[in-house]
Amino acid sequence: MDPKLGGMTLKEWVAIESDSVQPVPRFRQELFRMMAVAADTLQRLGARVTSVDMGSQQLPDGQSLPIPPVILAELGNDPTKGTVCFYGHLDVQPADQGDGWLTDPYVLTEVDGKLYGRGATDNKGPVLAWINAVSAFRALEQDLPVNIKFIIEGMEEAGSVALEELVEKEKNRFFSGVDYIVISDNLWISQRKPAITYGTRGNSYFTVEVKCRDQDFHSGTFGGILHEPMADLVALLGSLVDSSGHILVPGIYDEVAPLTEEEINTYKAIHLDLEEYRNSSRVEKFLFDTKEEILMHLWRYPSLSIHGIEGAFDEPGAKTVIPGQVIGKFSIRLVPHMNVSVVEKQVTRHLEDVFSKRNSSNKMVVSMTLGLHPWIANINDTQYLAAKRAIRTVFGTEPDMIRDGSTIPIAKMFQEIVHKSVVLIPLGAVDDGEHSQNEKINRWNYIEGTKLFAAFFLEMAQLH
Amino acid sequence: MDPKLGGMTLKEWVAIESDSVQPVPRFRQELFRMMAVAADTLQRLGARVTSVDMGSQQLPDGQSLPIPPVILAELGNDPTKGTVCFYGHLDVQPADQGDGWLTDPYVLTEVDGKLYGRGATDNKGPVLAWINAVSAFRALEQDLPVNIKFIIEGMEEAGSVALEELVEKEKNRFFSGVDYIVISDNLWISQRKPAITYGTRGNSYFTVEVKCRDQDFHSGTFGGILHEPMADLVALLGSLVDSSGHILVPGIYDEVAPLTEEEINTYKAIHLDLEEYRNSSRVEKFLFDTKEEILMHLWRYPSLSIHGIEGAFDEPGAKTVIPGQVIGKFSIRLVPHMNVSVVEKQVTRHLEDVFSKRNSSNKMVVSMTLGLHPWIANINDTQYLAAKRAIRTVFGTEPDMIRDGSTIPIAKMFQEIVHKSVVLIPLGAVDDGEHSQNEKINRWNYIEGTKLFAAFFLEMAQLH
Repeated sequence: MDPKLGGMTLKEWVAIESDSVQPVPRFRQELFRMMAVAADTLQRLGARVTSVDMGSQQLPDGQSLPIPPVILAELGNDPTKGTVCFYGHLDVQPADQGDGWLTDPYVLTEVDGKLYGRGATDNKGPVLAWINAVSAFRALEQDLPVNIKFIIEGMEEAGSVALEELVEKEKNRFFSGVDYIVISDNLWISQRKPAITYGTRGNSYFTVEVKCRDQDFHSGTFGGILHEPMADLVALLGSLVDSSGHILVPGIYDEVAPLTEEEINTYKAIHLDLEEYRNSSRVEKFLFDTKEEILMHLWRYPSLSIHGIEGAFDEPGAKTVIPGQVIGKFSIRLVPHMNVSVVEKQVTRHLEDVFSKRNSSNKMVVSMTLGLHPWIANINDTQYLAAKRAIRTVFGTEPDMIRDGSTIPIAKMFQEIVHKSVVLIPLGAVDDGEHSQNEKINRWNYIEGTKLFAAFFLEMAQLH
Repeated sequence: MDPKLGGMTLKEWVAIESDSVQPVPRFRQELFRMMAVAADTLQRLGARVTSVDMGSQQLPDGQSLPIPPVILAELGNDPTKGTVCFYGHLDVQPADQGDGWLTDPYVLTEVDGKLYGRGATDNKGPVLAWINAVSAFRALEQDLPVNIKFIIEGMEEAGSVALEELVEKEKNRFFSGVDYIVISDNLWISQRKPAITYGTRGNSYFTVEVKCRDQDFHSGTFGGILHEPMADLVALLGSLVDSSGHILVPGIYDEVAPLTEEEINTYKAIHLDLEEYRNSSRVEKFLFDTKEEILMHLWRYPSLSIHGIEGAFDEPGAKTVIPGQVIGKFSIRLVPHMNVSVVEKQVTRHLEDVFSKRNSSNKMVVSMTLGLHPWIANINDTQYLAAKRAIRTVFGTEPDMIRDGSTIPIAKMFQEIVHKSVVLIPLGAVDDGEHSQNEKINRWNYIEGTKLFAAFFLEMAQLH
């Protein structure tokens, strides 16, 4: 096996400060270097590599920064084999040792079998595990059981700038022969039990603005004679969800997929220690008492959260202001088969109803500022069955079949544009701390993950 | 008449940048200079003047700044005459020409009969009008019809720091012979019709904190299984007041003074052009349609305003946060005969009731952070009758008998500590813009106000 691959390479990759979140030239240079190093690694594997120039990005402050290239790579094009495309990203969240890192975030450091470093689990480790798996077949001079493609970007943490346009453009070129898309960019929900992720919630983000005038009032001079915007807004926000978490917008649950016996069984099969979960979350009591209810309300039911209010008094202390114009913000996590534009209509109509009953002379404007669809896959697709078998082979256990309560827009994007089956095969443990201080991947997860991907190729070849 | 008095002096006083709000040494020096100039003016009038050292003020940042002295002055002590004490302040709000002033705020500038300058109406002009009235008797070599005392401070705009302690200390000394206290630190509610103010609302300011944990959550990862603090808080705030402005806290109206026929007649007698008021306020529609209802809801009924929320997402943009801990802020303007501590209990009990019905596992804490009593005077007191007669003499009209919807803590303080009748005799017109850009006093108001105070002295002598 090429000594450049494996643990050595993860150390080198983590050492590159490929932070895409802080828009400064130094980090952009590191991102370009990261993508060049990855392209080189793939070339040495024998892949045909294209680094696609992504142009530049206009920042809100007028500054322009170049976008790191997206790597499109191909290994093998045997028409009798299936073609699996792996998506990954090599940019990372910011990391500063002063923020509470116990080791230098850009020096991969092993402590008790844990490999600490920024990007170790999100997403450099999993990308390398996939490359390592391919490399193993090369080292053994075995034919790859499947054709492999890679799409690797460097702007995921910054919102995958310009990626969708590229996928759209490559739909009938790079993606034309692709049968399956694999993403490994989330985590298990356990320390030791592997998982397969087959769905994520969507998100529709709303603002509701209530305006009397564009200037505040003094509560001594005007209190008592105004339709106060805050009173209207609090009533509007208070009409959205009850104290049991049930969303009160009429019709909102109409399109939620009915619950089947089979689905309930998947929740039952998942191991989740509620006591430990509550403790690690530092939450005294959840809305629900059973594992099944908790998982279902995180994954397969919509939820509504009120985020805050812009334009009101938000500082410490006491200010006797009547805000003249306020904007409430809330969002609904969407689940299959809720439709973004139906939800937009339902929420708007509901708020208009509530507002009209108040006979307020203020102006109300409801806007949906973000609409991301939920994503769900067919868990009987070939690659799901292959992933399950591979997990049984490597880990000797059934995987947790999980969803993610958050939104992973790229999963839905690939499904929508490329129209191929997408699977999320996470490698990292629940406590890997992606995005936070002391991010790590366990040595065990990294090695078993590499084996898992190799086993997955073999299973895919059999099932295809 | 001393050429130093009158318009010349107002120009000199306005030129002193006696800003008490910005705690910087330069403005403090100006405040000390202002108080010294005023003490000198009073001395030249023949008054016995004491400048009371007020010590220094500890700022939140650890800095210590000297507090300008309070002037206590006396003119005459004939035991057969009544003694009137005038309260005024010579500090001003900040003013910066760049903020929209059309003239230099510290250069008194006459345009179309309006004298523009910071402090012109709040409160340097009225203090000088009173001094001018005294000075007129001096110039005519007439005996003063009443004994006059002055208490003049330099920290009113910063919350009258240390004033209450001084008044308490001087209760049986400086204030022992005082029969009446006159304040001239508010405005008419009209452009041309004078007013007498006989009451102000109080204020009780509340915070209600709802806490799940001291860290925020991500709405994808936790949305759907939490008692979200914002949902609790919005429900709590939404339970306080209905869309007609009616406060929903049980018992809150119990102690509100019953409305008498006599009182209704005072509102009827007041001239208020609703159309003009609505236009100048830039409010499309008020909660009430008649002049009487509007005045009553500003002056004699309590009002509840929701000011904002601390700890939630308050910036532009979309953040999918579930705030872990939020603090709602609202206040109730109190009217006679509501009691601050009864209101505190009623509000706390009400919020506890609402919260307990939600079965939330969060922690709620209600605090009253400020409790200022309402103030109301007996409008049949001698000095009210004297002020009315003086207004008839100078302006040829009956005054508007008004209250102030805001809280003027010093009126209540003098009433509580000194136990003497307090009257507010404003001199400025409704559009004087105290605290805002382009503050002014009309030349006419300034001159007629001086005459009014002189006539007031004569009427007091007759009625006492």
